[in-house]
Amino acid sequence: MAGARLKDVAERAGVSIKTVSNVVRGEVRVAEQTRERVLRAIAELDYQPNASARHLRTGRSGIIALAVPELVAPYFAELAAEVIAAAKKRGCTVLIEDTGGDPAEELRIACGLSDPLIDGVLLSPLCLDETMLANRERRVPLVLLGEQSYKIPADHVLIDNSAAAREATEHLLKIGRRRIAVIGQPSDRSHATTVQRMHGFLTALHAAGVPHDPRLVPDTREFTRADGAAAMRVMLALDDPPDAVFCFSDLLASGAMRVAHEHGLRVPQDLAVVGFDDIQETRYSVPSLTTVSPDKREIAELAVDAVLHRITTDAEAPHTRLTAGYELVVRESTRTSPPTA
Amino acid sequence: MAGARLKDVAERAGVSIKTVSNVVRGEVRVAEQTRERVLRAIAELDYQPNASARHLRTGRSGIIALAVPELVAPYFAELAAEVIAAAKKRGCTVLIEDTGGDPAEELRIACGLSDPLIDGVLLSPLCLDETMLANRERRVPLVLLGEQSYKIPADHVLIDNSAAAREATEHLLKIGRRRIAVIGQPSDRSHATTVQRMHGFLTALHAAGVPHDPRLVPDTREFTRADGAAAMRVMLALDDPPDAVFCFSDLLASGAMRVAHEHGLRVPQDLAVVGFDDIQETRYSVPSLTTVSPDKREIAELAVDAVLHRITTDAEAPHTRLTAGYELVVRESTRTSPPTA
Repeated sequence: MAGARLKDVAERAGVSIKTVSNVVRGEVRVAEQTRERVLRAIAELDYQPNASARHLRTGRSGIIALAVPELVAPYFAELAAEVIAAAKKRGCTVLIEDTGGDPAEELRIACGLSDPLIDGVLLSPLCLDETMLANRERRVPLVLLGEQSYKIPADHVLIDNSAAAREATEHLLKIGRRRIAVIGQPSDRSHATTVQRMHGFLTALHAAGVPHDPRLVPDTREFTRADGAAAMRVMLALDDPPDAVFCFSDLLASGAMRVAHEHGLRVPQDLAVVGFDDIQETRYSVPSLTTVSPDKREIAELAVDAVLHRITTDAEAPHTRLTAGYELVVRESTRTSPPTA
Repeated sequence: MAGARLKDVAERAGVSIKTVSNVVRGEVRVAEQTRERVLRAIAELDYQPNASARHLRTGRSGIIALAVPELVAPYFAELAAEVIAAAKKRGCTVLIEDTGGDPAEELRIACGLSDPLIDGVLLSPLCLDETMLANRERRVPLVLLGEQSYKIPADHVLIDNSAAAREATEHLLKIGRRRIAVIGQPSDRSHATTVQRMHGFLTALHAAGVPHDPRLVPDTREFTRADGAAAMRVMLALDDPPDAVFCFSDLLASGAMRVAHEHGLRVPQDLAVVGFDDIQETRYSVPSLTTVSPDKREIAELAVDAVLHRITTDAEAPHTRLTAGYELVVRESTRTSPPTA
């Protein structure tokens, strides 16, 4: 049956149109048996939930795009899962693009990929500069994820990276560590995120009266396991190596812990380790990892709500900065008693 | 300048049209300085690489969709990265959808999301059944990833799961293990992938004259760390626990190793562990993990070539089954001498 409508599917399945619509939109509150009956009817009638038709009718497709620099980084994969869940609850589908941190890709996605079916875009930019972003022509509603130095008009979702880094450092000081290395800071560039985190780290040291040793901040290019391993090797070659390390990502911490293990160091006794991101594997690693856990669900919900607000109501409203929560999750990699005096 | 063309960008940047096109398409062989000049000109002129216009001109947008059941599973994130790289080399963009293994989502994507801009689809289905898939109306070129029992007409990319599982089991037998548990098999369902892997496992046991103990195959629902941990707890509660475990995913192995550690078992001395997938974290885990490594790059290249072949040349050609390679990567979790007799 060509051109079957929602109504035809409902009749065939013996359910209401609303129920068919719920199944098609992926609503969860449909009984499994009903759901199967509807799916069967959809197949038999060749019914196609039609984004194009919906688009013609409402001017909206219900599709939003999410662009991240690297899906292989579990933080972005986990954030993407939360964005998909948040969008689904609100009746939207998410298409994901991995930009590889390429500014041309980031510009393409910021223009909605020139795909008229894309209603809005969530973008976690790595390299795109504010001139390019400000000049984009197609004004598809856009929300930026993560700390940025941009002054361009776009909604913005982030966490307080400075406060989080300060809390992580205070935790290491509290368990008696004084030579704390930082892994994640490139020596010749500054990025808003790492600037904020370094600021929090230095504030905590200063408040505790602990001097900062710049040799404990090895040059680190990317937030990968391999970079964490390389930086840790540099630290262990020092005459006076660190007794703790604060890594700006869990992947860096994973590489650092592996190298510590290969050098026969015990974590946390010889080296306490704190990460950042709270990716799933840190709960299972040996030892499990203490880490700053940004509230990924809240980031996702704030971002999806912000882009939907732009799409459906007021594209020209003043732009906002939305702050999500975080917490420091203490696990085995720092679970040790403070030294007795 | 509204409606700027490729030519205008080329003039402004002082390069050839071909160079601008290379930059826009993300070709890598463009000098960094030239690339920056082109990107700057694109921004200044508001030039938009226009998928819609390209689509009108050629009938093709250069966009393919990749749908996987779960991006949070690193195997799928890493496979997605390879698909993106393979597509980019061939001048295409990839949009990713996380179906959550939902059959309605899988059907939507198999119909190309009703988005006329999507040229073709790569789908790794979890639940979609062959009736639904066979009945889909919009005949967008479709390639299936992973072992399937489907008899439907679609190209198909897979590895030899039976041979890979046999090789993994033979490796455990060779280091002297006789009580080998299998984690990853649900007791009441069969899925083509796990059926093949169980077959390879049993074939190896049989060839070695080692009896199979069904109690060493705990019921496992999903390929997650939590399921691996739960299954390992069941195994360690047996009167005669296993001396080795073959896990059908690295995530299962990660959960199993964590539980072994919590029970004071040494890996590999007390318990040898083999995983499946070769996700990046297995190289850094303590101990590092022996695992079956499917050639994800080859899977991606075969799949992208297959879908582009359907799109550009012959949509009605006979459907093929394409087999990619794999290798067993031996690491610390099984690196132990065989028992001396």
